[in-house]
Amino acid sequence: MSVLDKSKMASFKQKMRSLMYNRLPILKWAPNYGTNKLVSDAVAGITVGLTAMPQALAYATLAGLEPQYGLYSAFVGCFVYIIFGSVKEITIGPTALMALMTYQQIEGRNVDYAILLCFLSGVVQLLMAFLNLGVLVDFISIPVTVGFTSATSVIIATTQLKGLLGLKISSSGFTDTIRKVVRHLDETRWHDLSLGLTCIIVLLLFRKIKDIKLTPSDKKPTKNQKILSRVLWLTSISRNAIVVIACSILAYNLKNSSNGCPFVLTGTVRGGFPSVAPPPFSTELNNKTIPFTEMVTDLGTSIVLVPIIAVLGNVAIAKAFATGKTVDATQELFTLSLCNIIGSFVSSMPITGSFSRSAVNHASGVQTPMGGLFTGIMVILALSFLTPYFSYIPKASLSAVIICAVIFMIEYEVVKPMWRSSRKDLVPTFATFVLCLAIGVEIGILIGVGINIIFLLYPSARPTIHVEKKTIVDSGIEYILVTPGNSLYFPAIEFIKSSVVKAGLSSSHLPVVVDCRFILGVDFTAAKGISSMITEFMLRNQPLYFINPKEEVIAVFKGAVMEDFQYFKSVDDLQQHLSDQKEKAKTIFSEETKLLPTGQSEEPASVTTTDLREIKCVNGCGNFVQHSSSSC
Amino acid sequence: MSVLDKSKMASFKQKMRSLMYNRLPILKWAPNYGTNKLVSDAVAGITVGLTAMPQALAYATLAGLEPQYGLYSAFVGCFVYIIFGSVKEITIGPTALMALMTYQQIEGRNVDYAILLCFLSGVVQLLMAFLNLGVLVDFISIPVTVGFTSATSVIIATTQLKGLLGLKISSSGFTDTIRKVVRHLDETRWHDLSLGLTCIIVLLLFRKIKDIKLTPSDKKPTKNQKILSRVLWLTSISRNAIVVIACSILAYNLKNSSNGCPFVLTGTVRGGFPSVAPPPFSTELNNKTIPFTEMVTDLGTSIVLVPIIAVLGNVAIAKAFATGKTVDATQELFTLSLCNIIGSFVSSMPITGSFSRSAVNHASGVQTPMGGLFTGIMVILALSFLTPYFSYIPKASLSAVIICAVIFMIEYEVVKPMWRSSRKDLVPTFATFVLCLAIGVEIGILIGVGINIIFLLYPSARPTIHVEKKTIVDSGIEYILVTPGNSLYFPAIEFIKSSVVKAGLSSSHLPVVVDCRFILGVDFTAAKGISSMITEFMLRNQPLYFINPKEEVIAVFKGAVMEDFQYFKSVDDLQQHLSDQKEKAKTIFSEETKLLPTGQSEEPASVTTTDLREIKCVNGCGNFVQHSSSSC
Repeated sequence: MSVLDKSKMASFKQKMRSLMYNRLPILKWAPNYGTNKLVSDAVAGITVGLTAMPQALAYATLAGLEPQYGLYSAFVGCFVYIIFGSVKEITIGPTALMALMTYQQIEGRNVDYAILLCFLSGVVQLLMAFLNLGVLVDFISIPVTVGFTSATSVIIATTQLKGLLGLKISSSGFTDTIRKVVRHLDETRWHDLSLGLTCIIVLLLFRKIKDIKLTPSDKKPTKNQKILSRVLWLTSISRNAIVVIACSILAYNLKNSSNGCPFVLTGTVRGGFPSVAPPPFSTELNNKTIPFTEMVTDLGTSIVLVPIIAVLGNVAIAKAFATGKTVDATQELFTLSLCNIIGSFVSSMPITGSFSRSAVNHASGVQTPMGGLFTGIMVILALSFLTPYFSYIPKASLSAVIICAVIFMIEYEVVKPMWRSSRKDLVPTFATFVLCLAIGVEIGILIGVGINIIFLLYPSARPTIHVEKKTIVDSGIEYILVTPGNSLYFPAIEFIKSSVVKAGLSSSHLPVVVDCRFILGVDFTAAKGISSMITEFMLRNQPLYFINPKEEVIAVFKGAVMEDFQYFKSVDDLQQHLSDQKEKAKTIFSEETKLLPTGQSEEPASVTTTDLREIKCVNGCGNFVQHSSSSC
Repeated sequence: MSVLDKSKMASFKQKMRSLMYNRLPILKWAPNYGTNKLVSDAVAGITVGLTAMPQALAYATLAGLEPQYGLYSAFVGCFVYIIFGSVKEITIGPTALMALMTYQQIEGRNVDYAILLCFLSGVVQLLMAFLNLGVLVDFISIPVTVGFTSATSVIIATTQLKGLLGLKISSSGFTDTIRKVVRHLDETRWHDLSLGLTCIIVLLLFRKIKDIKLTPSDKKPTKNQKILSRVLWLTSISRNAIVVIACSILAYNLKNSSNGCPFVLTGTVRGGFPSVAPPPFSTELNNKTIPFTEMVTDLGTSIVLVPIIAVLGNVAIAKAFATGKTVDATQELFTLSLCNIIGSFVSSMPITGSFSRSAVNHASGVQTPMGGLFTGIMVILALSFLTPYFSYIPKASLSAVIICAVIFMIEYEVVKPMWRSSRKDLVPTFATFVLCLAIGVEIGILIGVGINIIFLLYPSARPTIHVEKKTIVDSGIEYILVTPGNSLYFPAIEFIKSSVVKAGLSSSHLPVVVDCRFILGVDFTAAKGISSMITEFMLRNQPLYFINPKEEVIAVFKGAVMEDFQYFKSVDDLQQHLSDQKEKAKTIFSEETKLLPTGQSEEPASVTTTDLREIKCVNGCGNFVQHSSSSC
């Protein structure tokens, strides 16, 4: 083995090693894992578990599924993320957004659709990871995200009005829910409403108490103050669990009272570990077998949208916590796809990173992704032992949990800086928001992205064009300078062409100079358009020059057979050339006047062009002419 | 009335006058119209008529309609264009492309769909004209157009194989036609094939004879030579009519022979002027009434695609003939919409400008759009008197006419310059071509445009980024210069951010300078991204500057609350600042070393940043800092 081979081998090994570390981040932290970290992770994991359980039950109901499906969705992601996850704070599981998007797909159908959607989301994410399609996520801008999350928060809060008021109605979408809630307002169950409102107030208060300053900032806290502040913090963090447990105990005790329990309860939650089975590739609905292809057709665009929205959310959380470090989006995509694919084998609905639980995880001082182990075990223990008690959870308390989670996702405060900074961006924001509410979240986000892409394409189609008359100071020679403010691609070429022609016609005795400084790329259509423009100027005997073209631009023009593309590398070269031209023109002009006393001697422009062609031949650069003091 | 009001009034009158002239181009040429022009227009109009009639019959058959519908479609456009048309050569009527696109819509349905499509195309074109959506046409590039027209030519030529071979089969699409023709090859009717091939050969020969040079180029032509050359030219121009008439006479004579006519004939062509009636807003199909909404659903995307393709074709022809003048695309759109809307009242199928007939018009020396009057009258006369004779036209001869018209539309010769100029453009070309053949022309063009738009968006998402280490000659100060090669919009921001951060991390002791010279626009998402990048650099105590930002860019950054956006108007200002910094750092560094002998004195970078903040306050520009020798 030669030295070269050895070094190649070493470099290959190095690459494989780095790839392995990137794809299995556990290898990075596991070797240094010790008891201290384990304790921190256990505390954080258990705290997250206290939030995860009520949220799981609530989001399953939000998705239109039986509550246990929320728990089925809540543990796989925790375990998978330990091995593949690259951001220690992230907790994967059911979220309000995924639940809402799932609900829109399984409405009037059955749970099999939710599980298949979970599986297909994973597959699409895997495909995206392999095809490097993470770039798709970049096409969802902040305005669209803001409009979308705000709208979904409003929709989710609205759907929870039913639970809060104790109404037993079914509805779909924002407008339908509002309409039905108003119509059934007289059926409000006052016990549920009182309980729900109390829960909301308690949750909002508990959310704030962790910020209470017990010690003046200039003094050191005493031991008691330290303990109290720790207790307040823990109460604040576990507020969801505390409220739900308290309400359940209340409901359990009232059940045995004379009037029975006055609240609408969650009802039976099926216990036990879910059956491990492949996702359903066909299903029975209304006594009819629906094959895979029809299920896929029914799910429609959500097969692509759900995984993209999931990745978007997950990467956003990853970025929020990875202060300073770059987020490996491909790895997150890959991990998320595994979570969904494996999840679908234990009847999970589509899952992604949860912002609220990741924040709890962070606040609880998690050290490594190992925290997920404890959250996952808690969920499994709950499935094994706690489900009989879950049935006593009042629905109003779960609604309160959801409402308090989503109202802080309505991002009204971003409107002001957006107005100050880039007003145009308010259009996709409000379009997305309104359409998500009025029609549906999927249509809303698609149209929002569409509007955003149109904004993006607009400068390609109608670039700014700056036209000015320039005068060379020394010689007094005038010319028209046209500067297109963008690259030259097919949608812009007709526009640029007609602008340059117009500039030329307005002063047909002056040469026209196109400044290519902002033209970073050209395509074939544009090259052909420029070619026909050059022909037009030649027919009119008006000189047309290009200055500052990039090498790539010259190459494209050259390829599209432009023998008459006359360019200069700098404005100095151009001015030098124009001065030379004027001198020559004078000579030829006087000679021609002598030779042809009755000729077209009143058209110096024509003389200039003839003269230019002459120079071309003299230059001897072949067909393609470059005027430059340094070349040829 | 004050002077100001008068001048306003005059300016308003001027504007209205100019608008009227633009919208009614007949006002421009009618006042100067005389006998000379009338004679020229009459000759040209009649010559065009000789081409229009056989083409109309052939294209109606191609669209799957009875032949008279071709004639119904061939006269309205001629009359409308006289008043509203802005390019004298253009002749509006049925074309091979419109016929093919109509066929794909009415296959298995009835003629009402074709007429409704004509009406709706007109309405969509009117909408496009009012909403200024002519820009949509700009999004169809040369590569897509080439792929599309070449594919349609191949498809049309293929469908004509049936007529040429005398096969009586029905088929749809390219692959289906090829398969069925091959399967029924043994049913070939040799008489038809011979006649068809003869017609093709004659048509191709006649096409060439107008180029025969009777006179050596250095001699003046004699009178006889002039007449002969004129006869040859007329024969060449009217070749379609000559071939069709000759074949019909042959068929008519053979009909009375013992074996009857050996050719498949066109059959009855219903004569007389079509009934004038509103387009059908519902129809009877298979004994079922189909309402308007269902017809529209059936027509699908063609309602948008057919009018756009029609405009594209028409504007392309207009540009080809309007040498030097700018084409008023809105006016052409408006005229075309009137042609289609009015046409639909006399049972027309969708129509647009015909390249071949416009070329004949041009070659025949047409002077004004009045030529259309004669073509239109000829078609109406034909409907009134000639239809009994049209039934003797052999189908093979019409197939030959179509084949000879479309084979020259296969643009293989564009591939070579495209390869030389911009290879990437071959992707949409071939994708469009293959998909049009394999799936259908509408899907083909949509995917072609989609690929093209992805190419267009790519630089917005993944711009070039140039990173280099710069050293200031005088002071030896080093810095990292990062130059993004595109505007800063949402799809690119994450990419640019991570590139700049990476550049910063690679030499974390040097300041990073972002050159904004190519950044012509910024949106809110990008501003927020830059903001978080600035925070990251501050956390790392690494200075980050921006140079050459445009005013618009600064405004957007300012709006998104960027107190720490530090920029310089030129590279000189930056270098001056860096030198000043170095001096100050030295002083502070030595002072700090004195004060804190055990402090973090080994991190000059941190000192620089602290120092920068200090300067900000000293500058007194408020929250938003601009370092410039001239400002503050």
